[in-house]
Amino acid sequence: MKTYNQQIDSDSPNMTFSDYLTDQQRSVNEALQRWYRPAAHGPAEKMIDAATYSLFSASKRLRPIYCLEVARAFSGSFTSAIPAAMALEMVHTYSLIHDDLPAMDDDDLRRGKPTNHKVYGEATAILAGDGLLTSAFEVLSKAGGEINPKIRLKWVRELSEAAGMEGMVLGQFLDMRMKSLPSLEDLENLHRKKTGALLAASVVMGAQAAEAGESEILALREFAYDMGLAFQIRDDVLDVIGGEEMGKPIKSDERNEKVTYVSLLGLEKAEVQGKFWFDSALAKLSAIHFNHDNRLEELTRFVIERKV
Amino acid sequence: MKTYNQQIDSDSPNMTFSDYLTDQQRSVNEALQRWYRPAAHGPAEKMIDAATYSLFSASKRLRPIYCLEVARAFSGSFTSAIPAAMALEMVHTYSLIHDDLPAMDDDDLRRGKPTNHKVYGEATAILAGDGLLTSAFEVLSKAGGEINPKIRLKWVRELSEAAGMEGMVLGQFLDMRMKSLPSLEDLENLHRKKTGALLAASVVMGAQAAEAGESEILALREFAYDMGLAFQIRDDVLDVIGGEEMGKPIKSDERNEKVTYVSLLGLEKAEVQGKFWFDSALAKLSAIHFNHDNRLEELTRFVIERKV
Repeated sequence: MKTYNQQIDSDSPNMTFSDYLTDQQRSVNEALQRWYRPAAHGPAEKMIDAATYSLFSASKRLRPIYCLEVARAFSGSFTSAIPAAMALEMVHTYSLIHDDLPAMDDDDLRRGKPTNHKVYGEATAILAGDGLLTSAFEVLSKAGGEINPKIRLKWVRELSEAAGMEGMVLGQFLDMRMKSLPSLEDLENLHRKKTGALLAASVVMGAQAAEAGESEILALREFAYDMGLAFQIRDDVLDVIGGEEMGKPIKSDERNEKVTYVSLLGLEKAEVQGKFWFDSALAKLSAIHFNHDNRLEELTRFVIERKV
Repeated sequence: MKTYNQQIDSDSPNMTFSDYLTDQQRSVNEALQRWYRPAAHGPAEKMIDAATYSLFSASKRLRPIYCLEVARAFSGSFTSAIPAAMALEMVHTYSLIHDDLPAMDDDDLRRGKPTNHKVYGEATAILAGDGLLTSAFEVLSKAGGEINPKIRLKWVRELSEAAGMEGMVLGQFLDMRMKSLPSLEDLENLHRKKTGALLAASVVMGAQAAEAGESEILALREFAYDMGLAFQIRDDVLDVIGGEEMGKPIKSDERNEKVTYVSLLGLEKAEVQGKFWFDSALAKLSAIHFNHDNRLEELTRFVIERKV
């Protein structure tokens, strides 16, 4: 596994952001592949196939990269944060598999490929999701080298709260029951749960890995919630103006009769709202005192200003 | 929450086994109810309703009671083991909700009531299961009083391994793909994963709560796997000879074209197999040196000799 020093080397100031991103994605992918390799034989093999089909699809790995970058910003090593990074991607992937199910959003395409249940069937997709969610906690409890048990336990607490019935699961539940014309407040609350909670967990778990202070963790959490709303609005906007390169068919929200920022506010006002949360997120980020220069602002600009 | 001393008091030798069982079930239910009460308002309420509908249906609470009883047998307190006990029941309940889904076993009745998706719809049932699974790890990370973080972390590891893609999830996956005439070995392997792994986690987590030795934990794990097979065979037998009181319609296995010990071996040979594993489990149990008298043998007899 990479050491902190290697990580610092590979993130020299000369590295372009694009190279940095590719390098981080590769590091996360390698760690995830190492995790699943030992199990890839015997009766578990087909089950792992279904889970890794979705886990290794074209994800930007934003949550793990935020986690690793926050750890680095507080002088934490790659090794100290990689279990958290892996667990975050597993939970994110499980949520996509379950959200795509026929009983939920009934989507056929995800990240440019057929959804999990389209390839493996509904039963296996449900189980692959269940398995990834469970694996995430296994990873937190034992992946990587010597990590203080108190930190691992903080991760379990943070991730279970973020992903659970007052976090991401609640967000999806609210999404399924969303009225056709919710208030802006209701829509925001939904996305704080559905997307914001896990993004917040990503930066918080990185900070916990590096044993950052409580006030920094609080500030990071607030940054992530604002960034999450900006991210979601960008997603809604791209669904209308973007292309098929997003990995899901354009205007899939409209076909699914999803309430979005665009359907609620119109395109122009939605973009203004997005800009508001983006500026707020960047302001919160710039007020945090990190130990090192870091890529968090660049990463956030990339997330929000993306074209796909 | 009950203290160890109260627990000892309430389990005086004069108490009948039936009263002991009722008392333990009440203690587990109270702990679970306390856990969900704080969240039962606001937008989370309906989500919690769906989860607790299944969590508080007529369960025997075998997994938590095994966990608590093993802890007590090694001088551990009720308080020291109750988070593990709660988490086990949450994971068990989530697995039943997901197994009953139309895409899986498509069952209409569970524990004498309509299955979760029959009452709340498929999407909510999937989310209720996801939420319970996630809650289990939240409980392990923070429920109850002062518990050594190292013990909590051992629980997370044990439960995630038992419930995950090499344990219970794999068991259900194998069950869905079971050939019409598997070998006895394949059927056993399936049930070791599907039922045995979580039963083993139940006794192991109780032992971990009481900081029992490694050799005791190993022996308990082996006991639980044998007991699990005896339990499963009893289940298969009762499905043929039992009554509707089981909470699922009689001969539901046959209607669902499930491969069971009875369909594979016939009723008589299945009963012989069940007896074999039951005797093996009791022999393993009697070889373990516990600190205290305990109800583990009685509990096991109850589980295997039950009429419903």
